[in-house]
Amino acid sequence: MAVPRNGKHQIFLGSFIHSSRLDELQYMHDTAVFVDESGTIVAVEQDCNESKADQVARERLGWTDNNMEIRQAKDGEFFFPGFVDTHLHAPQYPNIGIFGKSTLLDWLNTYTFPMESSLSDLTKARRVYTRVVRRTLSHGTTTAAYFATIHVPATNLLADLCLSLGQRAFVGRVCMDHRDLCPDYYRDESLEEVKRATQASIDHMRSIDPDFSLVSPILTPRFAPGCTAEAMSYLGDVAKETGLPIQTHLSENVNEIQLVRDLFPASRDYTDVYDTAGLLTPKTILAHAIHLSEAEADLISARGSKVSHCPCSNSSITSGEARVRWLLEKGIGVGLGTDMSGGYSPSILEAARLALLVSRHLAMPHHVHDAFPEAGTERAKLSVEEVLYLATRGGAEVVGLQGKVGGFEVGMEFDAQLIGLGTVGEIAEGEEAEGEDKGNVDVFGWETWEEKVAKWVFNGDDRNTKKVWVKGRLVHSRPT
Amino acid sequence: MAVPRNGKHQIFLGSFIHSSRLDELQYMHDTAVFVDESGTIVAVEQDCNESKADQVARERLGWTDNNMEIRQAKDGEFFFPGFVDTHLHAPQYPNIGIFGKSTLLDWLNTYTFPMESSLSDLTKARRVYTRVVRRTLSHGTTTAAYFATIHVPATNLLADLCLSLGQRAFVGRVCMDHRDLCPDYYRDESLEEVKRATQASIDHMRSIDPDFSLVSPILTPRFAPGCTAEAMSYLGDVAKETGLPIQTHLSENVNEIQLVRDLFPASRDYTDVYDTAGLLTPKTILAHAIHLSEAEADLISARGSKVSHCPCSNSSITSGEARVRWLLEKGIGVGLGTDMSGGYSPSILEAARLALLVSRHLAMPHHVHDAFPEAGTERAKLSVEEVLYLATRGGAEVVGLQGKVGGFEVGMEFDAQLIGLGTVGEIAEGEEAEGEDKGNVDVFGWETWEEKVAKWVFNGDDRNTKKVWVKGRLVHSRPT
Repeated sequence: MAVPRNGKHQIFLGSFIHSSRLDELQYMHDTAVFVDESGTIVAVEQDCNESKADQVARERLGWTDNNMEIRQAKDGEFFFPGFVDTHLHAPQYPNIGIFGKSTLLDWLNTYTFPMESSLSDLTKARRVYTRVVRRTLSHGTTTAAYFATIHVPATNLLADLCLSLGQRAFVGRVCMDHRDLCPDYYRDESLEEVKRATQASIDHMRSIDPDFSLVSPILTPRFAPGCTAEAMSYLGDVAKETGLPIQTHLSENVNEIQLVRDLFPASRDYTDVYDTAGLLTPKTILAHAIHLSEAEADLISARGSKVSHCPCSNSSITSGEARVRWLLEKGIGVGLGTDMSGGYSPSILEAARLALLVSRHLAMPHHVHDAFPEAGTERAKLSVEEVLYLATRGGAEVVGLQGKVGGFEVGMEFDAQLIGLGTVGEIAEGEEAEGEDKGNVDVFGWETWEEKVAKWVFNGDDRNTKKVWVKGRLVHSRPT
Repeated sequence: MAVPRNGKHQIFLGSFIHSSRLDELQYMHDTAVFVDESGTIVAVEQDCNESKADQVARERLGWTDNNMEIRQAKDGEFFFPGFVDTHLHAPQYPNIGIFGKSTLLDWLNTYTFPMESSLSDLTKARRVYTRVVRRTLSHGTTTAAYFATIHVPATNLLADLCLSLGQRAFVGRVCMDHRDLCPDYYRDESLEEVKRATQASIDHMRSIDPDFSLVSPILTPRFAPGCTAEAMSYLGDVAKETGLPIQTHLSENVNEIQLVRDLFPASRDYTDVYDTAGLLTPKTILAHAIHLSEAEADLISARGSKVSHCPCSNSSITSGEARVRWLLEKGIGVGLGTDMSGGYSPSILEAARLALLVSRHLAMPHHVHDAFPEAGTERAKLSVEEVLYLATRGGAEVVGLQGKVGGFEVGMEFDAQLIGLGTVGEIAEGEEAEGEDKGNVDVFGWETWEEKVAKWVFNGDDRNTKKVWVKGRLVHSRPT
């Protein structure tokens, strides 16, 4: 297997929108982005039309008719960076929407462990994983940090599928070896098994993508109350030796936190358990991080670890409201995660929408709480611009791809989506043209670009994501 | 203009799902629902196939080939009652998703009043209102309680459009006559103008639908801090004389509540202001009702007035979290409202989803609050079954149509939607058939019916609403 690539240089022409900083989007109209055949952006020209772009390509870049293609957006369409899903469980995909009134610990035993266990069946794994990769691509997710299962062959299959379908991915074989806390039917049998399985999945991914240019292994201790201290320390050692990234869960649910307190009485707190094992690195993704103390957040910040905020999951299974503004002000990098199937939606756009809503719940006046100084205040609110930053540049930082994906800048790789919005014609009753389903965003024509983007954030779905590229390769295209 | 109707008797065959009580759905498979040419359900037969249904129609109902049609659902599809949107503002439709970080009072002045004012232009009104009626129909909303604007001709046009497009509707000309609180460019100029305009819109709707069988006027004082006491009392008197329903806003935002306190110092509270004006009747829809005291809720319950819960709006513009369980336990009827454009979504399915999420925010452990005894407890949580009840039977009760719409029972009118979910084939990588866009619900085949319904609630959208009927008339059909 080899990393597929687009065979030609490409010029993308039209409107480009990306985050210039946390609270600001940059709108670049009449712009050309030049992407070489490796998928890297080699030039960006504003105030550009097709003939000028053609000239730049030939004269400055030395491209020719034979080795380049021009892709022009239609009027009203715009290019946006691909989304980064910093936390999701591929094997749980068939369970999205199925959680009842459960919370974390009963949800794991009722819905999650049985489903994950069943993915040892490779036929089932292929069916589920193909769907989840295609589905997330169709929602504009160009990079995903996946938890797989404990099974090496199925985990490796997920990596194979990401590579062949063209999604940039971190694929983690899940480590969970605690005899008292993991079910008999679904756990690593021993520390030796943890080591063997971890190594086998790393070896496989190195064999299919030696530079981890598209698909990378990620060390994945499930969470403290599922792992032995020995297994966590082993993974911390592997991270130190290999420089591989790490992903786990932290401080999601109050009962989980109490359980960790009981299990690790020598540790100061949940975060300290991971720190003791050497698991808090600058390449560590901590999912949830809802109920942290000041000391825990300060430790995460000092270690340079990152947080995956999963608002859909946190509301659905009643985990809590993560304090994103507070985390950001601590200097912690934050991205968004769908956390399927704790979260029900495959869409990072939905995660962005819900991040904005959850921040408003934190800001509500009756939400005053001694431990949350910013609760009940305007300051907790996240803007449209901020949640789109978290969905792109923030996510890129969380998965260690800052400067490589998340924007349209020279030197970055071209991970992008082409967004099209519906328009409401100047029509009278009964005369409306049907035809292509343009989704739920209705543009009347008088909206500013800022308003069009807000409309997309709130009513957009996969119908608005017309095409998706990863590293310059077209990996999804809606049937027209 | 006459009320359009389906010309024939109809037999609907397949699976029917509806609420049998607040926390329970009834699943009726292999069922036939017989709808006469007036749109009324005249028989329901379970354990029925096409030939048995045909026999019942001929022998018991006396129908013949000439005057009846059979409509059979495909395998996996099901009929569900049409949704009732108990609160939305048709003229604000172009603004959905555009609210920034505003809260109620600045949101009204920044976004809402300018847009509403501009709908005096009938060309614009026709364009906007056509779209909002079609759009809500496409999401399965068979009944809508609309706020229009202060303008009589545009309000009447909305009523005309509902009638011709076939949506059951309550259409309210908005009364807002307070000189200090409403903008100069957008208010009723005098009490005389309130009376004239109110009467003119009632007269118009009586002329197009004399029995209000599909479209009814609804008395619509915008909210206490936009109306004079005289105008509210006048509308209370009209309600008493005519028996017409009433809709208004109540206790949405803490600053609004303080404003009402300042404006009506003689009143005990916000709710009492309406009671004094005679506006709390069994046919009154109170939108939001978030920050009520025990005394206010008890008064609403005693008067038999109803509440429209608008979770999308309440989260978006940071109004608060309405305590639905508490309202229900007070014996108050509760339905769901999209409240566009305080809410961003035209979909009552999305409102149901968000009602479930907001109830979980109320249940979160750090949400303990002296005034909310059920906050921070499991009891606050609403189930999938409960939010679907609110979306159908609850809504029907709120708009005074209980026993007439909201379920599949003999004597009810047939307001229904046909739901289809996507299925994931037994496919390997690369072999997936594309073609029709079946939306985001993925059924793998092993799910129970309860799980299929949960999947629809969480990932369903207008793509899953294949057809919509109001009073037996097909009013929406997705292009296939």
